[in-house]
Amino acid sequence: MAQDAVAAITVTVLLVPQSLAYALLAGLPAEMGLYASIGPLLLYAAFGSSKTLSVGPVAVASLMTASAIGAVTEAGIADPISAATMLALLGGLMMMALGLMKMGFVANFLSHSVVSGFITASGILIALSQLKHLLGIKLHGDSLPELLAGFASQWGSIHLPSLMLGMGVLGFLLFCRSALCSALLRLGCPTSIATTMTKTAPMLAVIATIIFSQQLDLPAKGVSVVGDIPSGLPALSLPTLSVELMNALLVPAFIIALVGFVESVSVGRTLGAKRRERISEDRELLGLGASNVASAISGGFPVTGGFSRSVVNFDAGAQTQMASVFTAFGIALVAVYLTPALYHLPHATLAATIIVAVTGLINFKDISAARALSRADFLTISLTILATLILGVEAGVAGGIACSIGLHLYKTSVPHVAEVGLVKGTEHYRNVNRHRVITHPGVLSLRVDESLYFANAGFLETYVERKIECTDDLTDVILMCSAVNEIDVTALHALENINLALQSRGARLHLSEVKGPVMDKLAATEFISSLTGDVFLTHHKAVSEVLA
Amino acid sequence: MAQDAVAAITVTVLLVPQSLAYALLAGLPAEMGLYASIGPLLLYAAFGSSKTLSVGPVAVASLMTASAIGAVTEAGIADPISAATMLALLGGLMMMALGLMKMGFVANFLSHSVVSGFITASGILIALSQLKHLLGIKLHGDSLPELLAGFASQWGSIHLPSLMLGMGVLGFLLFCRSALCSALLRLGCPTSIATTMTKTAPMLAVIATIIFSQQLDLPAKGVSVVGDIPSGLPALSLPTLSVELMNALLVPAFIIALVGFVESVSVGRTLGAKRRERISEDRELLGLGASNVASAISGGFPVTGGFSRSVVNFDAGAQTQMASVFTAFGIALVAVYLTPALYHLPHATLAATIIVAVTGLINFKDISAARALSRADFLTISLTILATLILGVEAGVAGGIACSIGLHLYKTSVPHVAEVGLVKGTEHYRNVNRHRVITHPGVLSLRVDESLYFANAGFLETYVERKIECTDDLTDVILMCSAVNEIDVTALHALENINLALQSRGARLHLSEVKGPVMDKLAATEFISSLTGDVFLTHHKAVSEVLA
Repeated sequence: MAQDAVAAITVTVLLVPQSLAYALLAGLPAEMGLYASIGPLLLYAAFGSSKTLSVGPVAVASLMTASAIGAVTEAGIADPISAATMLALLGGLMMMALGLMKMGFVANFLSHSVVSGFITASGILIALSQLKHLLGIKLHGDSLPELLAGFASQWGSIHLPSLMLGMGVLGFLLFCRSALCSALLRLGCPTSIATTMTKTAPMLAVIATIIFSQQLDLPAKGVSVVGDIPSGLPALSLPTLSVELMNALLVPAFIIALVGFVESVSVGRTLGAKRRERISEDRELLGLGASNVASAISGGFPVTGGFSRSVVNFDAGAQTQMASVFTAFGIALVAVYLTPALYHLPHATLAATIIVAVTGLINFKDISAARALSRADFLTISLTILATLILGVEAGVAGGIACSIGLHLYKTSVPHVAEVGLVKGTEHYRNVNRHRVITHPGVLSLRVDESLYFANAGFLETYVERKIECTDDLTDVILMCSAVNEIDVTALHALENINLALQSRGARLHLSEVKGPVMDKLAATEFISSLTGDVFLTHHKAVSEVLA
Repeated sequence: MAQDAVAAITVTVLLVPQSLAYALLAGLPAEMGLYASIGPLLLYAAFGSSKTLSVGPVAVASLMTASAIGAVTEAGIADPISAATMLALLGGLMMMALGLMKMGFVANFLSHSVVSGFITASGILIALSQLKHLLGIKLHGDSLPELLAGFASQWGSIHLPSLMLGMGVLGFLLFCRSALCSALLRLGCPTSIATTMTKTAPMLAVIATIIFSQQLDLPAKGVSVVGDIPSGLPALSLPTLSVELMNALLVPAFIIALVGFVESVSVGRTLGAKRRERISEDRELLGLGASNVASAISGGFPVTGGFSRSVVNFDAGAQTQMASVFTAFGIALVAVYLTPALYHLPHATLAATIIVAVTGLINFKDISAARALSRADFLTISLTILATLILGVEAGVAGGIACSIGLHLYKTSVPHVAEVGLVKGTEHYRNVNRHRVITHPGVLSLRVDESLYFANAGFLETYVERKIECTDDLTDVILMCSAVNEIDVTALHALENINLALQSRGARLHLSEVKGPVMDKLAATEFISSLTGDVFLTHHKAVSEVLA
């Protein structure tokens, strides 16, 4: 409990500037960031499965929120605040529904490469979009072409005081992150304290620039500041239930919920692994869903489990979700008592905070790792990054998912088929092109490295028939099914055709190493009774008996 | 050549009533059926790969054409004739493009169950929609609810003369198909001649009812007839190129092309197998594409390779595509000289011809076969039938494809994982729950029956970690990868996490029977160097060395 209270203080200090900054990034009034850091923490503490995950506004979800809000406000459907709360409500209800239906598995279709590419591209977009506050210019849009066009047209109207202030904060934060931490370590400071101290740098920057801005009356010099923030806590209320608004936000809400869920589970798992703590996906959905509903009815916007805030919480020694409860209390105190002090906080300070935070999101190493391992992953991550940068966040996620699933389906539709032979001195059969193996004329041993289903049934049929045509004096074909995990109706028709084609040449078709579940299904079909050859438990037995 | 000419006469006799009937089914003037049976045959003869496939209007494509045309005419975008020719043009160009890009594989994603369910449902819809001509009533719509509502409201206005005529023709055609054929066979008539003769029944019905209708002046009694048909051949011309029309027809054109292609290849393969003739998918796309373009510029509508017409062509002794060239000539003669004679042809006759033809499409056996073999196929075929009947043809095909792919992805996301042990007296490892096998305490042998990719990486991680938790004194886990055809980035992360989880318990992770292509990729990763255990060629070797 005491440890949790200490952790809560550290996290609160980190969260105040972060919450204000992410509300700004989402295109919303700064106080909504505070509101989104109170209710959600309490609800996650009650329903979530991780002991150390810290829930609230995060960079990527805020960017996605900005994009979704932008679309509906431009169309004149709703104001930004109604749109943001509706987005949180819809996303929260969807997550809760998925959790109650035990459908957490849908998140499995968001591959690592899609998530990694999306986050990298989001980091770039966020950093670029925040440059406007550093430069004191106005920028619209949330895709690379729009942002670059904005820079080009506004290049002449850069506001020097804002730029100097922003660069100063940026320099300070970068110094704290790199030099300060290693200096503290050299001075013998324990690692956890050193990293935690450097995390308070944003708060120090906030306090320092508020004082600076007030003393020099920067608002009068044209530096944009946060301005009036209502004191106190928001009244609980449901968002305005407009059917048109709900329809417009259904897809973005789902995508934000999906990405937020995957991110959150990944953070929870990483931390959980350090304490041998299991994360339940379905309970996570419930916890995050309830948090978003809480955010919606208390004037916030979409929230999820954030990496940096959770790591701070963990490193500061949080043992249970009581740390989050204390944190919520801390933020509530700020919202009630300290909002007048935030009047002079320059937007440039918050923008610098965000820019430093998102540099950690940009990760190009995953691209080269993907390139080495899998062409499909490389294509997916590249396409996701490009689509996100050029077409925006929703198209980026949707395009990445479509690309990864499409490539997977394509690959399974042209499966690897190997002719195999016996590895001398064993009962093991391997590819004739990769190993020195024993084969027998007239007997063709083929191993299909894929389940047989509709997408590859035609390929198999054509492959085997071509192979038959160019093999002389063929008497037996043995299909080794050790990698065949399923046979469906379309594939069964293909096998029947292969069987007939062999029969018409006076040759036989055998199957070997058919898995139990597959054999159970096949046993009931006419195919097995019309099979010209036999079914063998092992490929070795099949070859021996065929030759006998 | 002589054989081809004889076959052509038989096919022409079959095709004239069929072509007129399918134009009617598509909601088009009867002569368009004739036009669609001239140019397409010539172009397929030049470009297609099958020697006996007969191309022209077919039942299912005509129903889909009716649906697509209905949508654009209701929206006021175009008249039926422009819409039909544009549909053929777009579909033809798409097929040619796919063929040139060697992308015939896209058809593999239309599973047997989707095609079978779609054709069965189409047969039902076609038969129901044609009942209106037999009953002499007006019906609109092309889905079951619309058709049934139409029947209910029009029940009172059944036209008795039309009904009697239609039932007479229906009875005659059904008699010819069943009783006549077996009677001829009993009289010693060769099978091919008997079946060919029964196929001329529709033509006999056409001639008889024309005479009947003329003598009794049935049009004056309210029996709907074909009426004036322009004599001569259509002038070649491009469809009106309206962008709005093209946009509206893109999706239907693609679906018609896809289904037509799959059907056509399936007919071509069935006939080709009897003569050891190979069908090239990409050349088929070119041939069918060119046929449709020809249909479009000569006043026709979407065409494809038909089963019944091709079988008649084959049975009548066609040896080459010259038979189709002669057939095109025969139909052209009809279009030039015989259209005045068709004036008195009752619609009820054509409707009866269609109804008899489509009863052969309705096939419920595939549903029970799917049920026995694969739950996914059963769900897919059921959903396809229901969606087609209730929501219409496009939704039926699209829903069926989405269902089959979704179920496949779901299945691969929760793969079968088996704990395996040694089958006594062999080097073969099988499921401990299905075979009497030898296992060793502390050593866990797991076989994953699926490629490891993003959709099942999380499942595997959770599965193995649970298994680890409930196994006492675990020293080694050996993952048997004989069914793993691929490992992607997401799966690699899961394996790294499993490796770490074992390491933290002082246990090791080994891999066995990793396929060549997979090992090539893994060898380059950090995972292999950080692996706590080893990689073995065979599972038997792995177990022996781990125990040693």
